[in-house]
Amino acid sequence: MGKSVLDMSVSLDGFVAGPNETPENGLGDNGLRLHRWIGFGEEADGEVVPGRPEGVNGEIWDGLMTSGAVVAGRGTVEPAGWWDGDHHDGVPIFILTRSRTPESVEQWPLITVLDDAGEAIGRAKEAAGDRDVLVHGVGCAAAALEAGVLDEVQLHLVPILLGDGRRLFEGIDLERLHEFEVADVREGRGATHLRYRVVR
Amino acid sequence: MGKSVLDMSVSLDGFVAGPNETPENGLGDNGLRLHRWIGFGEEADGEVVPGRPEGVNGEIWDGLMTSGAVVAGRGTVEPAGWWDGDHHDGVPIFILTRSRTPESVEQWPLITVLDDAGEAIGRAKEAAGDRDVLVHGVGCAAAALEAGVLDEVQLHLVPILLGDGRRLFEGIDLERLHEFEVADVREGRGATHLRYRVVR
Repeated sequence: MGKSVLDMSVSLDGFVAGPNETPENGLGDNGLRLHRWIGFGEEADGEVVPGRPEGVNGEIWDGLMTSGAVVAGRGTVEPAGWWDGDHHDGVPIFILTRSRTPESVEQWPLITVLDDAGEAIGRAKEAAGDRDVLVHGVGCAAAALEAGVLDEVQLHLVPILLGDGRRLFEGIDLERLHEFEVADVREGRGATHLRYRVVR
Repeated sequence: MGKSVLDMSVSLDGFVAGPNETPENGLGDNGLRLHRWIGFGEEADGEVVPGRPEGVNGEIWDGLMTSGAVVAGRGTVEPAGWWDGDHHDGVPIFILTRSRTPESVEQWPLITVLDDAGEAIGRAKEAAGDRDVLVHGVGCAAAALEAGVLDEVQLHLVPILLGDGRRLFEGIDLERLHEFEVADVREGRGATHLRYRVVR
């Protein structure tokens, strides 16, 4: 069975989005720069240039694109327009949320909405078979860590300071200390890719 | 001339000390674990076991110990008992603070107290000659970045979540975006050593 892998691009000061997030300013001020390693935000005017990047970044990208299911929260999927119902290659998508979703979500057969992290990741793993499950978002990270259902964490550490915005690790119940061990470190253009196993 | 290098051990969620810092709980709850890579806090009971570590961690340690001057703030030097007046090998120490220091500080000839980051790092560089200047502490990091006098940042990234405590990058005036580029990445036991050049 595959692993559940939290995947996030994060600034050196721990933010996954900059300050002043709005629907028109999706990742907040300077937030697009966090995704420059995959080609997004390459242009100075913030224009989106998607596509497989070269070198190490491309290898990392390939790893993400071979995942067999996606688990994400509202804060991730809504600014991304629900990926028009397909994150990549038609793999099943599980959206973790406690709030009501718009009716239009029902039009997308790949999307399942539920409110329990253990169930979301369990069903995603089942659907993914031998492939990994891609876990996205701050809320999902906290819920999956607390529920003990996260196997790995992959961070794309981007060497900028955003100063304010949305923090990756926040609001996690720390009754127990969460501890990881390094599985892989790779240096790409504009990001250090750190992969950790969750120890406890 | 040598470089000014901020050096900090930091948790994966960005803290350099855990919650509930007191004089008896110097680095806060679980904070000692941030220094386990150099042998401090190796024991389960938090006992301090100083000394040069083995392998990559030892190489990093040697780099620190060959610095030619130290710049630190009150928050760093006070919990460390002012290093009894000598951080290592009798190199000059510049303490950056705006508050009054105890009279006892005057007994230590290596220590100079001043309140301007540019002056502190300038004088430390002069004293260090060809060797690097070791910069320590959250306040020093912010002041040196804002003053544009920091050349490099070396982080020892420790894969634990502290959840709360003292953040490394906080309260920095972000009128301009601070941006770095990777100079070196080395994997040690219990810490990934990331070295960045400050680009702007």
